[in-house]
Amino acid sequence: MTLVNGHQQHTIDVLDRGLAYGDGLFETIAVIDGLLHHWGLHWQRLQNGSGRLMIELPDEDDLLDQINSEIKLTALQENNAERANGTVRDNGTVRDNGTVPVNSTRQILKLIISRGSGGRGYLFPTVQHPSVIIMLHPWPEREATDYEKGIHAVVCQTRLANQPALAGIKHLNRLEQVLARNELHSANEYQQDYQEGLMLSYSASKPLDSLVIEGISSNLFFVLNGLLCTPKIDNCGVLGTMREAVISLAPTSLTLKVQEGHYALQQLSRATEVFFTNSIYAILPVASITVNDSLQWCYTERTISNQLSAIINKKLKHPTQFN
Amino acid sequence: MTLVNGHQQHTIDVLDRGLAYGDGLFETIAVIDGLLHHWGLHWQRLQNGSGRLMIELPDEDDLLDQINSEIKLTALQENNAERANGTVRDNGTVRDNGTVPVNSTRQILKLIISRGSGGRGYLFPTVQHPSVIIMLHPWPEREATDYEKGIHAVVCQTRLANQPALAGIKHLNRLEQVLARNELHSANEYQQDYQEGLMLSYSASKPLDSLVIEGISSNLFFVLNGLLCTPKIDNCGVLGTMREAVISLAPTSLTLKVQEGHYALQQLSRATEVFFTNSIYAILPVASITVNDSLQWCYTERTISNQLSAIINKKLKHPTQFN
Repeated sequence: MTLVNGHQQHTIDVLDRGLAYGDGLFETIAVIDGLLHHWGLHWQRLQNGSGRLMIELPDEDDLLDQINSEIKLTALQENNAERANGTVRDNGTVRDNGTVPVNSTRQILKLIISRGSGGRGYLFPTVQHPSVIIMLHPWPEREATDYEKGIHAVVCQTRLANQPALAGIKHLNRLEQVLARNELHSANEYQQDYQEGLMLSYSASKPLDSLVIEGISSNLFFVLNGLLCTPKIDNCGVLGTMREAVISLAPTSLTLKVQEGHYALQQLSRATEVFFTNSIYAILPVASITVNDSLQWCYTERTISNQLSAIINKKLKHPTQFN
Repeated sequence: MTLVNGHQQHTIDVLDRGLAYGDGLFETIAVIDGLLHHWGLHWQRLQNGSGRLMIELPDEDDLLDQINSEIKLTALQENNAERANGTVRDNGTVRDNGTVPVNSTRQILKLIISRGSGGRGYLFPTVQHPSVIIMLHPWPEREATDYEKGIHAVVCQTRLANQPALAGIKHLNRLEQVLARNELHSANEYQQDYQEGLMLSYSASKPLDSLVIEGISSNLFFVLNGLLCTPKIDNCGVLGTMREAVISLAPTSLTLKVQEGHYALQQLSRATEVFFTNSIYAILPVASITVNDSLQWCYTERTISNQLSAIINKKLKHPTQFN
């Protein structure tokens, strides 16, 4: 189901500046049992991005009304289809009469807010008519072993360019992530399967001396000298909502101090525990990081990620205990 | 007139990766009397970009057929509309019977080639179905004084991030240009009108010591110690087709050596002549560069830009002699 500027349609004007220049923002939000997860954090990031790019956001209540109507409509349509087919949904329980409860499942809401059409070339118009695109996608399947055993990550060749003007916000200029993700796919040819890529910021330095920033579609946390550390997102990278949630939760629920800093990749060699965070996958423990053909670091400790998962992953119906 | 994947339409799938990630390329091509200007150079850059982004380009002949049909169709429709209205087109001459000759004018062809829809998140699919969007736009009006007196440029606060993986190609990730162009617009409030912004690459250095790269939508040339200089486009910036044309033409037609290098902004203080190049505006001489509120450099020399314009601007029907 897709809602484009209030209309049930799946197309957009070719003159939209989102297509022309990547002139817009997006959010990927977990919908759990029909409810938006961490909406406050997503909206906060949208506001940050809209301020930076000078894109006018729609009214929050109006936007939420549209989103919630779309979620309900999708659930009703799916239920009707399932009643007709007698099929069972992931995480849904078929009732005696063959129907499943409305909104008993997990979905992904993708929200794109672009600057819309108009302006002269790169110059955007004084009066903007932003495009609001609301898309509901099926929840992606993820191997339970990713949570139970941890995932294997590899350091990407593609670096993140330093651009403070765009750092932190989730804008539509994502070619670096597209190139990095393709590396991961290509890397699979070398026998080892990698589930995430680790991205460094661009510098003349060799990888070990370069700053580690984040995963391709996740943020990075690691435990070093008893501190929970995460790279500072000031020159590149995205301020993930799940990153924010962990930073808020760790000091209060785990009495664990979080340190944001600039860390060279080689500091991960001394980390006792490493995990990624993502708005959909929540806490994903890391079993190994491959730096190159001859250097790999392994992590077996799971104390902090288990404690955080007991709170965070549970809400997203993910496995909460790792081995 | 707009052709999307061979169909006369003006919409595109909201799932197109061009919108989602700026995952694609574009070209802005001058159409002079119905003919594509510098097609070879544009196609060469598309090939370079498609190699870098691993996007499959359509067959060149098929693409040219589509483009040329669209140009003819647009001209016919415009002629019909004008015959009905009895109006005169820019640069067109109304015949006795009220019609204007087909294709007697200037237009802009905007070509977008995105990776199309598909894939899982950032990962693009193995089998791609790129989107090909062909748009014909009216030729933009430009003040004759821009050519005759030269334009006024200002140094932008927005810097170009260093990203060798994307440097040179004309991809759809253009937020830096959008932000810079808006500065120029805002700068107009300070009494002085600026017609172009000068962009530096990102560094910790102060503006004067930072590398100068290009204009917001143009490349930069300047004459220093009798040499024609232009910034090397290896870490950021776009390899403009008109830049390529000047680099080819200068040594043969003007017996002038061109030097590509890394130049700090302050080297422009010693330049004797400065001009921008752009596929539509051709050679645009620079009258002044404003670095900040208290520093402005002025240029009155026009020898090289006049010589180049006599050849290059003439083909695009621009003024060729500057004062």
